[in-house]
Amino acid sequence: MEEFDFGMVGLGVMGRNLLLNMADHGFSVAGLDLDAEKAASLEQEATEEHKVKGTTDAQSFVALIKKPRAIMLLVPAGKPVDAVINSLLPYLEEGDIVVDGGNSYFPDTNRRVEELEAKGIHFFGMGISGGEKGARFGPSMMPGGNQSAYERLRPIFEAIAAKVNGEPCVTYLGKGSAGNYTKMVHNGIEYAIMELIAETYDLLKRGFGVKNETIQQLFEDWNNSELASFLVEITADILKKNDEVTGKGLLLDYISDTARAKGTGKWTSQNAMDIQAPVPSIDAAVQMRDISKYKEERVAASKLLPYDGIATDIDEETLLKTLKDAFYFSMINIYAQGMAQLYIASKEYDYGLQLEEVAKIWRGGCIIRAVCLEDFRKAYDANKDLPNLLLDATLAEKVGATQQAARDVVKLAVDKGVPVSVFMTALAYFDSYRSETLPTNLIQAQRDFFGAHKYERTDVDGIFHTEWN
Amino acid sequence: MEEFDFGMVGLGVMGRNLLLNMADHGFSVAGLDLDAEKAASLEQEATEEHKVKGTTDAQSFVALIKKPRAIMLLVPAGKPVDAVINSLLPYLEEGDIVVDGGNSYFPDTNRRVEELEAKGIHFFGMGISGGEKGARFGPSMMPGGNQSAYERLRPIFEAIAAKVNGEPCVTYLGKGSAGNYTKMVHNGIEYAIMELIAETYDLLKRGFGVKNETIQQLFEDWNNSELASFLVEITADILKKNDEVTGKGLLLDYISDTARAKGTGKWTSQNAMDIQAPVPSIDAAVQMRDISKYKEERVAASKLLPYDGIATDIDEETLLKTLKDAFYFSMINIYAQGMAQLYIASKEYDYGLQLEEVAKIWRGGCIIRAVCLEDFRKAYDANKDLPNLLLDATLAEKVGATQQAARDVVKLAVDKGVPVSVFMTALAYFDSYRSETLPTNLIQAQRDFFGAHKYERTDVDGIFHTEWN
Repeated sequence: MEEFDFGMVGLGVMGRNLLLNMADHGFSVAGLDLDAEKAASLEQEATEEHKVKGTTDAQSFVALIKKPRAIMLLVPAGKPVDAVINSLLPYLEEGDIVVDGGNSYFPDTNRRVEELEAKGIHFFGMGISGGEKGARFGPSMMPGGNQSAYERLRPIFEAIAAKVNGEPCVTYLGKGSAGNYTKMVHNGIEYAIMELIAETYDLLKRGFGVKNETIQQLFEDWNNSELASFLVEITADILKKNDEVTGKGLLLDYISDTARAKGTGKWTSQNAMDIQAPVPSIDAAVQMRDISKYKEERVAASKLLPYDGIATDIDEETLLKTLKDAFYFSMINIYAQGMAQLYIASKEYDYGLQLEEVAKIWRGGCIIRAVCLEDFRKAYDANKDLPNLLLDATLAEKVGATQQAARDVVKLAVDKGVPVSVFMTALAYFDSYRSETLPTNLIQAQRDFFGAHKYERTDVDGIFHTEWN
Repeated sequence: MEEFDFGMVGLGVMGRNLLLNMADHGFSVAGLDLDAEKAASLEQEATEEHKVKGTTDAQSFVALIKKPRAIMLLVPAGKPVDAVINSLLPYLEEGDIVVDGGNSYFPDTNRRVEELEAKGIHFFGMGISGGEKGARFGPSMMPGGNQSAYERLRPIFEAIAAKVNGEPCVTYLGKGSAGNYTKMVHNGIEYAIMELIAETYDLLKRGFGVKNETIQQLFEDWNNSELASFLVEITADILKKNDEVTGKGLLLDYISDTARAKGTGKWTSQNAMDIQAPVPSIDAAVQMRDISKYKEERVAASKLLPYDGIATDIDEETLLKTLKDAFYFSMINIYAQGMAQLYIASKEYDYGLQLEEVAKIWRGGCIIRAVCLEDFRKAYDANKDLPNLLLDATLAEKVGATQQAARDVVKLAVDKGVPVSVFMTALAYFDSYRSETLPTNLIQAQRDFFGAHKYERTDVDGIFHTEWN
C-alpha cells in the first residue's frame, strides 16, 4: 500500500506510454482502467526493471499511491473527466493532487480547480504535446494549477519531459487553467503551421506543377535550415511514403482532402475573439479545414468558376528560394499571433504566464517544436513584458528582410488561382500591425452614422456624436 | 383597459421610434419605461392623431394591451431581458406574446422560448435593423418564434416595415431563435462590408495618395451602380462631412482609428466555427477591429517594420475601375459566406429558413440593404435549396467576370503594403470554394502521423492508419 510514486487513470496509448516513460526513469507507477485488458497490457509492456501495476478498481488504485497522491487522468475531455473525478473523490484526501492531462476546455478546468480546492484537493490542467511517441520518450508538458502543489509533481515531470540543451520541456506555467490555455494556443499555432505547409505544397504542385520528389527534397532541405521543425520534418517523411494499397505513387496522393479537427484550434480562435486578440492565421486555418468538408459543392463550383491563371516567368530555383523566405516570414507571424494571444490572455485571466518559459518548453517534445523557438526565448529573455514578437528588434529585422518574399508568394498564388489563406492572413496581419493608422476611423464614422454609437477624436479628448445628414 | 394594439418595454430612441412608427400607421400603442422622463417624452413626441400612452408601472402597462397581448422588449441584451420578462410575467396570460427586439445571443432566445412556452406564453426573438431612422420610418425585421402566434403581430409589423416594390421587409422566418440568428449573420455580413469599404478607402488614400474628394465621388458613383447600397451611400455622405471642431478638412480625418464592436460580428464568427460554416471574411473583419485596438503597439511596429512599397504604373482611371469590379466580387463573396452560414445553421438548428425570404427582407430597411439582394432573391427563387450563392449560374458568371479585378487589387495592395484582409479572404474563399481538390490531404496525413487520427482514401472506402516511419 501507498508505495507507488504516481497513478494514471485511462490506460490508452497516451496514458500507458507516459507511465512507461516514468517507469524508465525509476518511478513506480500504477494505472487504472475499467477495461481489464488495458490494465493488463500495461504490465505486459513493462520490463523487469519497471515497477508497474495495473488495476480496474478505483479504491484499491488510490490506496496504492504515496501521499500526498499524484494522479493523472488521460480520458476524453468533457463529461468523462468529471465522471472519473467523481469516481475517485470518495478515496482522495486533503493535499492529494489530480492532474488532467487531456485537452480540456479551459473554463471546465477553472470550474474543476474551484470545486476540488474547496475539498482541499489540488487540481491541475496540463496540456501534453508530442503524440504517442512523445508520451513514451519525452513530451512537452504545460501544467497549470497550485504552485506549491507542483513540487510533488516536478521531479517526475522533469524526468520524463523532452530535453533541450539539458533543460526539461516542462515548467509550472501559472494558476487555474493556465496550462490548458497554453496548450490550446499551442494547438491553434499547430493548425496554422500545418495549413501553411499544405499551402506551400499546393502552390508548388497545383500552381506550378512541381514534382512530388522536388517538394519532398525542399522540405528535407528546409528541415536543415532555420525552418527546421517537427512539422516540416514529418512532411518530408510523408512525401517519401509510397502507397502500399495500389503499389503506385505516393500514399499522400490517395488521401481524402476532407480534413477533420478535434476542436482545440476552433477554441483558440473563438476565445481570441472574446479577448480581442487578433489571430487571423489561426482563424483561416480552422476555416480551411471547414471548407474542405464541402467536397460536393467544391466539385460543382470548380466547373462553374474556372480561372485560367496568369503565366509567370519565375524559374523553379527562384520560386523555391522565395517560398522559403515567405515560409519563414509567415511562420514567425503565426507564432507572433499565438504568443500575443497568450500575452493578452495572461492579463485577462491573471495567469501570470512567463512567455520565456513557454517558448522554452515548446523548443522540444511538442508538435510545434522548431528551432525558431530559441529565438523567441531570447526575445522574451531580453524583454519580459514583450507584447508581440514582432516588436523584438532581432526578429523584426529577420521578418522585415523576408517580407518581400511573402508578398511575392501571395502574388504568385493569386496569379495561379491557388488559395493561400494563411500566407495571406499572415501578410495582412503584418501589414496591419505595422500600420500607425488604420482605416477603422471610417468604421467608427459609419457606426456613429447609422447607430449613434459615438466616436473618439485624435486631437481632442471626449466622446462625440455627429448628425451626419 | 385592454384598448391598445401593442406594447413596448424600453423607451429609448429605438423603442420610441418603433412605437411612433406604429402610431403613424393607425395602431394604438403603449410604452413602459422605469424612467418617467422617457415615458413622458413618448407622449410628447406623438402627434394629436396618434394614440399613444407612456407609463412606468408594469401591471397597469400590461392591462392596457388587447388580448392576446403583443409586447415587445427593447432593452439591452443579456440579464436585462430576463429581468424585464420576470417583471411582466405575473401579469401575463396564456396566449400572450413577448417579442425581444434586441440583439440577443441566440442560445438565450432558445432558452426563453422554452421557459415561456411552458407557461403558455409565446416568445419571439426578432432582429431589427435600420438604426434609429429605420425604426422610425421603416426597418427590416427578422422575427422567429411560434408560427401561428405570428398572425397577431403580422399586420402591425408589415405596416411599419420598410417596403421594396410594395413588399414589406419582414416575414416569419422560423421557429425558436431563427430570427435572432438571421440578424446575427446580418451583422456579421455588415462587419465584413464595412471593413471592405474601409480597405477600399485605405488603399486609395494611403496606398495611392488619392484625394478625399476623388474617393467621395467614387462612392457616390458606386451608389448609382450595381454596388448601390446603404453602406456605400453613407460612406459617400461621410466623405462630404467637414470638420466643425477645427473648421479644416473632413471630420473623418479626425476620428480615432480604434474601432469598437458590440459582439454580434464576433458571435457570427464563433458560431460559424461551431457549425463548420466557413466565413473567413467575417472573421477577418472582426479581427481587424480587434487589431485596431493595439494603437501603441502599432505605432511602435510602424517604426520597426517599414516597407517602401513597389511602384505601380496603373493610372487612376484604371485603378478606380478595377476597384469597382473587385468590390463587387468581394461583396458577393461576403454575402455568399453569410448566406451559406444561414443555410448550414438552418439544417443544424432545424430553423426551416427560406433564404429567398431572407434575401427579400434584406432588400430594404436594414444596414446591409443593397441592390444585389434582388439578385440573391432570384437565385434562391430559382433553387430553393441552393447551398451557396456562388453555385447560382447567373451570379457565378458575374463573379467569374470580376475575379481578375479582385486578383489585381490584392496584388496592388500587397505592393503598397496596405492590409486588405477582407479583399484577401474573399479571394481565398473563392479560390478554395472552386477547388475540386485542396491540400488538406496533407493535413490529414500529418494528423495521422503524429496523432494516429486516421484518414480516408479517395479510391477505397474505409478508415486507415499508417505507421509513417
